[in-house]
Amino acid sequence: MVAYVCLLQEGISNIPKFIEKAIENKYSVVATSINANMLPFEPQESDPTYPATVLGALDWNSKVIFTLSDVNVDSPNAKLRAYAKEVLLREANWAEHLQHSGNVMVSLRGPQNENLAAIVRSKTKGNWLIRVPITNPELATFEHRKDATEEDIAKAEAIDPWSWWNNLRLAVDHNPKVKVVIELNDSDRPCKETVRRWLGEPIEAIIIPSSLFIRNRSNYAVLKKEWQIIIGHFIAVRANIIISTNPNDNALNQYADYLNKLISENTDCHAINSYEHVLEIPLQPLGDNLDTYTYEIFEADPVKYKLYQNAVQAALLDRVSDNEAKSKLTVIMLLGGGRGPLARAVFNAAELAQRKVRLYIIEKNPNAIRTLSYMVKTLWANKDVHIFSKDMREFNPPELADILVSELLGSFGDNELSPECLDGALKLLKPDGISIPYKSTSYINPVMSSVLYQNTCALPNATAFDCGYVVLMKNIYHIDEPQALFEFMHPNREEKIDNTRCQVLKFTAKKNCVMHGIGGYFDTHLYKDICLSINPLTHTPGMFSWFSMFFPTQPRTLKEGQTVSIKFWRCVDATKVWYEWQVVDSPEDWEHHNICGIGYSIRLWTE
Amino acid sequence: MVAYVCLLQEGISNIPKFIEKAIENKYSVVATSINANMLPFEPQESDPTYPATVLGALDWNSKVIFTLSDVNVDSPNAKLRAYAKEVLLREANWAEHLQHSGNVMVSLRGPQNENLAAIVRSKTKGNWLIRVPITNPELATFEHRKDATEEDIAKAEAIDPWSWWNNLRLAVDHNPKVKVVIELNDSDRPCKETVRRWLGEPIEAIIIPSSLFIRNRSNYAVLKKEWQIIIGHFIAVRANIIISTNPNDNALNQYADYLNKLISENTDCHAINSYEHVLEIPLQPLGDNLDTYTYEIFEADPVKYKLYQNAVQAALLDRVSDNEAKSKLTVIMLLGGGRGPLARAVFNAAELAQRKVRLYIIEKNPNAIRTLSYMVKTLWANKDVHIFSKDMREFNPPELADILVSELLGSFGDNELSPECLDGALKLLKPDGISIPYKSTSYINPVMSSVLYQNTCALPNATAFDCGYVVLMKNIYHIDEPQALFEFMHPNREEKIDNTRCQVLKFTAKKNCVMHGIGGYFDTHLYKDICLSINPLTHTPGMFSWFSMFFPTQPRTLKEGQTVSIKFWRCVDATKVWYEWQVVDSPEDWEHHNICGIGYSIRLWTE
Repeated sequence: MVAYVCLLQEGISNIPKFIEKAIENKYSVVATSINANMLPFEPQESDPTYPATVLGALDWNSKVIFTLSDVNVDSPNAKLRAYAKEVLLREANWAEHLQHSGNVMVSLRGPQNENLAAIVRSKTKGNWLIRVPITNPELATFEHRKDATEEDIAKAEAIDPWSWWNNLRLAVDHNPKVKVVIELNDSDRPCKETVRRWLGEPIEAIIIPSSLFIRNRSNYAVLKKEWQIIIGHFIAVRANIIISTNPNDNALNQYADYLNKLISENTDCHAINSYEHVLEIPLQPLGDNLDTYTYEIFEADPVKYKLYQNAVQAALLDRVSDNEAKSKLTVIMLLGGGRGPLARAVFNAAELAQRKVRLYIIEKNPNAIRTLSYMVKTLWANKDVHIFSKDMREFNPPELADILVSELLGSFGDNELSPECLDGALKLLKPDGISIPYKSTSYINPVMSSVLYQNTCALPNATAFDCGYVVLMKNIYHIDEPQALFEFMHPNREEKIDNTRCQVLKFTAKKNCVMHGIGGYFDTHLYKDICLSINPLTHTPGMFSWFSMFFPTQPRTLKEGQTVSIKFWRCVDATKVWYEWQVVDSPEDWEHHNICGIGYSIRLWTE
Repeated sequence: MVAYVCLLQEGISNIPKFIEKAIENKYSVVATSINANMLPFEPQESDPTYPATVLGALDWNSKVIFTLSDVNVDSPNAKLRAYAKEVLLREANWAEHLQHSGNVMVSLRGPQNENLAAIVRSKTKGNWLIRVPITNPELATFEHRKDATEEDIAKAEAIDPWSWWNNLRLAVDHNPKVKVVIELNDSDRPCKETVRRWLGEPIEAIIIPSSLFIRNRSNYAVLKKEWQIIIGHFIAVRANIIISTNPNDNALNQYADYLNKLISENTDCHAINSYEHVLEIPLQPLGDNLDTYTYEIFEADPVKYKLYQNAVQAALLDRVSDNEAKSKLTVIMLLGGGRGPLARAVFNAAELAQRKVRLYIIEKNPNAIRTLSYMVKTLWANKDVHIFSKDMREFNPPELADILVSELLGSFGDNELSPECLDGALKLLKPDGISIPYKSTSYINPVMSSVLYQNTCALPNATAFDCGYVVLMKNIYHIDEPQALFEFMHPNREEKIDNTRCQVLKFTAKKNCVMHGIGGYFDTHLYKDICLSINPLTHTPGMFSWFSMFFPTQPRTLKEGQTVSIKFWRCVDATKVWYEWQVVDSPEDWEHHNICGIGYSIRLWTE
């Protein structure tokens, strides 16, 4: 998963030597013209050319990006168009011959790319890297003008390189073999939102022209702080680096050193990154029994259990005065004990608060009970602790609890059915008892993410667009900021509890973009102001127990300033809970997803 | 792909310590009882047990095979049956909890395993390793008896461990998560055919009891030559090794050293092994243009081009006497020049024979022509060589050829349409001219191979059973020896050429087995007795250019001595060639595969 640094130079006559030079200077890949145009169509003995055999097939594949000729297959001139098509096809054929699954790079120079799209569609044995400038300097004059006319806006779009890419991407139907290569430009530094939007695209690489480098006091080639930050964002979403320079440049190794360092600084190497963009079906701890592997991942979170401990400690101190500390026993019930991490947090809290506690651990997974039993016998041999192998909704307690402690929340808050479980456990709680957590809130926003859309399309099941997924998102653009959706309070002492919900939230696109789905998050209040959050705006630092949710929609282009109203339902019947979602907007409503839980629902009981 | 050596011991109370001991002695995996039976069903605080946390999830998964209790879920006694089922389910649940995708091992003790099969079907999150003795000593008395009655045979089957496994495998529908572990036995060495039959099964491992080891003169634990050979066969099909011994054994490291050495001696590490059991759609060099990657693999064959060179050399010496050597020019046409390996063979042959040749290279792939042109300009600058970028069937030669040289053969001989191509090139040949090769023959036989059947089932297309595949076969049992199927002679100067064929061949099962499909092979005569063969009976040593073919059938159990008649068709129409196949046998015909080329046909022209 470590990015490559590629050397792009033109005017290369000897590719193997070029590769040698690049590797000596710490580049692992080269990019250069394919030079298939040196041959006529019907080759004769005397034609100048290079043979396939100058490199092995593995090297052609892994070490070379071919830049195709800068011909315009969408020229208004029919003759030029036909010639350009011949050239491009010939080059693509030669690349296909040399590279079993390699890379060709082609530049977009304007909004018209229909013929190019047709060629790309017909030739996707390898990857197509679509080279576009990160901004168009002409475009700057259009930005931030409130008085722009319709015509102005259309004109601005025609010169916006993102729109060029977007039209091509739509014309090739989001084909995952077509990726974007974004070219930086020393004359025009993009604004934040422009950079953010590119981060939602399938980026193969960014091109850094050598002219972007300046000299520091030691006469070493470096980048300005502003560029470092921009490039760092791209590296964080796994973009590779292409340094574009001329054949006489003698600072090659300085660029490579600098970028390799920048890559190592901006690459997040956590083991959990193997899950990036993988669409996972959410766990159903209620319907299924978790295994050791899953428990182990959760238990490794360095932040979550500390915050639980703080919450229990604060509650104990509030509920039991110093005077009562030796006499008053606090009964805590742990709803879902797993393999013991919350129990440990409770015991730590009691010790720090110097309060007496009795802990009942209720756990429905008989396999986890084995491990808990062992802990009771060893680690907790001198504690006042009692294990019950039961579903909390069916548990008859020997006494009532002062505090219920649970960690029943999923990535979307209530999606592992904490409301239903905690409502069912209300009978375990004293009238003045409390629940930790006492509130959970889900959040949503519209997002652009080509890779999540592609991964949804790649799923084999027909209802792939009717499922919410748990996913570690990197390549994503937040079209607008998340807003609160559903809220649940615990304990819920209402007479008639209704855990169904329905809400419409309105968002505004900050830029032209494509909406691929809805991001889902949650936050929860454990006790007073002690919170856990995976809402991107307030994410608890260092906590990795929960990835985000992704609810796919069919892709549609949104205009800057356009509003999108997302309607979201939480539905409940006797056996299951499910969500439905739909964009309800002018001019017309979009698809209604997961009607009646057709693709995804959460079981209320173990089968 | 390197096999593991596992230490199997019972009576282990501390699994982490057992793993430590095993690793110290150079075992990478351990096998021992799961010991879930130490717990009652409703665990209480006081139950003796071990917690999941004694090992990390990765270690549970990768370092431990759990042996399940030897209880009989198929007992005729209902009470015993119910108890056994409870025990086994409890153990399987605990294993599922500990191992995300681990291994449990269960022993077969007799022919009745229906209830076990039901449990296995319901619990295949991890792998089930089915432990069976390689032979049943009782069975020896039944072997090779010609006068056995029906009853005798039924009785023999009931005590044949392979039949136990086969019934279970059929009952779980060839589930790829159910594999066999074969236990060797010092009292009974299996015959060759018994070993061969096991090689067609999905073998996870073989168990070697420590009692199989003897002491050599240096008092070192070794295996007898006969056992070395048998174990070597299993290692060659990627079986892992389990050493079964008692906890007091102090020669553990000697066994591990010995087996690790045996593994390295018997493991074929050729890069091409990454293709093992991968079902590849056969190449269509006529319909598609090959790429550099494919050419490179073919060119690397160390044997094939040497034999071509020998053939051309012999032909040149036969056709041109020493007296004519300086004056007589032999015109050779290379039909399909690729990137030049056959041209090199021709020039080498001419030099060795000291005969004058003119070489015309005809090649229809324009990309290969680029490389050939370069070779003509450099390596062959002083040769009499001429390249034509043409389909041989459309080529008008400047003169006629004495010798046509071609390598148009696929894994099934004629399946890359060499008959059609060479017939089309007949007009290029002088009346006394010859073709190298001058004959090709395809061969077939019935085969058992669970893994190939499983891989066919795993293909997404509905016509997976109507396709012939190219495959590097390892885990395979030849039910009977291959027989010649279709023969083609070149040049074919018949007035009306008919390249369709139909033939029925009769085979006899040497042992009870399951037929999963038909193996396909070929041999070809280049010149006189210079041959290339991939027929397993006569395979040219060291030649790896061609894998075998596999034509799937639906699995059916065959009885020892049962005959199977395989009917095979080669069909031709205006645009394509295809094969059909069917077992036509009493009591009734099996499925007729690939009718009208529904799943697989070979195009006669580039699209």
